[in-house]
Amino acid sequence: MKPLLHDLPTPALLVDLDRLERNVAAMAERADRLGVALRPHVKTHKCVEIGRMQVAAGATGITVSTLYEAEVFATAGFDDITWAFPVIPSRVAQARRLAERIRLGLVVDSPEAVASLAAERFPFEVWIKVDCGYHRCGVDPTTDAAGDLARRIEAAGMRFAGLLSHSGNAYDHDTDQERAAIAEEERARITSVADGLRAESIETRGVSVGSTPAMTAARDLAGVTEARPGNYAYFDLTQESLGACSLDDIALSVLTTVVSSSTEHAVVDAGALAMSKDGGPSAGRAMGRLIEIAGAPVGSAAPELVGLSQEHGKLDRSLAVGTLVRVLPNHSCLTAACFDHCYAVRGDRVEGRWRVWNGR
Amino acid sequence: MKPLLHDLPTPALLVDLDRLERNVAAMAERADRLGVALRPHVKTHKCVEIGRMQVAAGATGITVSTLYEAEVFATAGFDDITWAFPVIPSRVAQARRLAERIRLGLVVDSPEAVASLAAERFPFEVWIKVDCGYHRCGVDPTTDAAGDLARRIEAAGMRFAGLLSHSGNAYDHDTDQERAAIAEEERARITSVADGLRAESIETRGVSVGSTPAMTAARDLAGVTEARPGNYAYFDLTQESLGACSLDDIALSVLTTVVSSSTEHAVVDAGALAMSKDGGPSAGRAMGRLIEIAGAPVGSAAPELVGLSQEHGKLDRSLAVGTLVRVLPNHSCLTAACFDHCYAVRGDRVEGRWRVWNGR
Repeated sequence: MKPLLHDLPTPALLVDLDRLERNVAAMAERADRLGVALRPHVKTHKCVEIGRMQVAAGATGITVSTLYEAEVFATAGFDDITWAFPVIPSRVAQARRLAERIRLGLVVDSPEAVASLAAERFPFEVWIKVDCGYHRCGVDPTTDAAGDLARRIEAAGMRFAGLLSHSGNAYDHDTDQERAAIAEEERARITSVADGLRAESIETRGVSVGSTPAMTAARDLAGVTEARPGNYAYFDLTQESLGACSLDDIALSVLTTVVSSSTEHAVVDAGALAMSKDGGPSAGRAMGRLIEIAGAPVGSAAPELVGLSQEHGKLDRSLAVGTLVRVLPNHSCLTAACFDHCYAVRGDRVEGRWRVWNGR
Repeated sequence: MKPLLHDLPTPALLVDLDRLERNVAAMAERADRLGVALRPHVKTHKCVEIGRMQVAAGATGITVSTLYEAEVFATAGFDDITWAFPVIPSRVAQARRLAERIRLGLVVDSPEAVASLAAERFPFEVWIKVDCGYHRCGVDPTTDAAGDLARRIEAAGMRFAGLLSHSGNAYDHDTDQERAAIAEEERARITSVADGLRAESIETRGVSVGSTPAMTAARDLAGVTEARPGNYAYFDLTQESLGACSLDDIALSVLTTVVSSSTEHAVVDAGALAMSKDGGPSAGRAMGRLIEIAGAPVGSAAPELVGLSQEHGKLDRSLAVGTLVRVLPNHSCLTAACFDHCYAVRGDRVEGRWRVWNGR
């Protein structure tokens, strides 16, 4: 007899299996329809079990944000991993040990990073990050910086894997049309750089784009070879505010107990170390939204978490001490990373307990 | 030969031993001078080694925020622990197992919480939380709620340990005088409730107050038996903005590498999962402040972390790729909880690697 989620000690991280399976299948179909391979970013869930579901649905490999994630997933049998973060010089030796075991893609956007890899004298597979409008990392696509780096990579005996971008700027737009325009801008810029390299006879195999809000709106990805969305496995209130999903798609929630209550508010056992302090779509006014109180769904005027200290979460209204509530997170990637385990639930049955591989 | 901190893989959590030792000694002296026992809150560091330093400096016991912390510290030999969080009904059986091994103080502020403990039929030691102005948890000190709970505790065969409060409202005041006034308000309210209970012949042994900003300003704690500050071990930019410490007292920092740079900004490998997204004193505009670049201290116009995504931190200016920088956190408790280990450093020597006991 499987346990019921209402028997779990709180706070507990819950993954709704029906929603997760639907999200995983929908993005796999979407990538297929757009003619690109899917390389999901597992930083969102850090769960080997979910990575396996994504591969079973057709993912050709995975994306990670840290070498620790790469090592954990490699040990679990994943053998084609891109570490989509600019190479950290003090971790190149660690990266090499992993690259000797599996296919590991690394990312650079500077001559210094190429030099730090070259010093290891190992045929690393190296992607060049291109800034397609987000302005966080990446080479300027209007210059020859990508060509310069590609030549340096090859001159050092390494393998130039292709171009990679992340359309994080899609998070600034909350209509399908605007997000589709960001996806098209990203596509146009990165394929134009790829065409430029090919014109210089630099073989450019991979053209990889990212972000859940762009991928849920993109209409055409001609010239792109793969996409790396991550958040879509869970979605969250931020994605819902952008129109990238509906509330009913959000697969991650935190089960928490009312532990104190006054006439004006209540306190639950989900604080900053259960939700994260991501301010989400309301710029920090609400830190999470209740979807269920004592097993009953909440309507449209849902109570909100309005304050978080380390272990305390403050609700905007009174509820009886002992009441169990479920809260949707602003940012599922950061909320999931607050926990060492999540509970996979179907309805109110707990089907599994999965390790969330936090660490460095 | 001890390693140098500049040889550590980044991101890395650093604890400056000179500052830590100074902070630990100063608060122990302060409690002594104010005539109260010190029961430091270890949620700030979650390090057994630092807890031992605090006990060696005179702490009579420790305070924790989760049962997991309590279990870890009990296993390490700490035998007098207060779990300063309102009892979570689904964790009462777990609390009992620990209370059979060590002296464990529990906290309630509602009849429901007392009933959940009473159902276990175990002589728990129970504190009553009093709201002395912070308005997060605690009974109203102007009513007989504390007396009612104390009678319920004793009627259930449990031991009433005393009254406990947390002056989190001291964080809203940035002069010594104002924070001293908050400390006095807390003292006056909680001792008045204690006097009321004693007038009803309810033995009230402990009178426990909290918070680093109040403890660094309090002038008189007559009637109080113990204090539970936590943050003071490390301090942070929030405490500095309140005047509770100076920049030179902050013992916690994150060592991080510039991994990408444009003409306008740089990106380091310390993102939301290294710093936390605590907005700190500037309400989210700056997520951390650089104190050292490539080993050299930075002056007053220090660069700032102005944006955080999961693993990326964005600096407000350009720095060469590969440069090592150290960043002070807005909120050291949440930053420390991002890491599984910290490095204890003295000058640029790494003296130890300590486990940070995150978990639930």
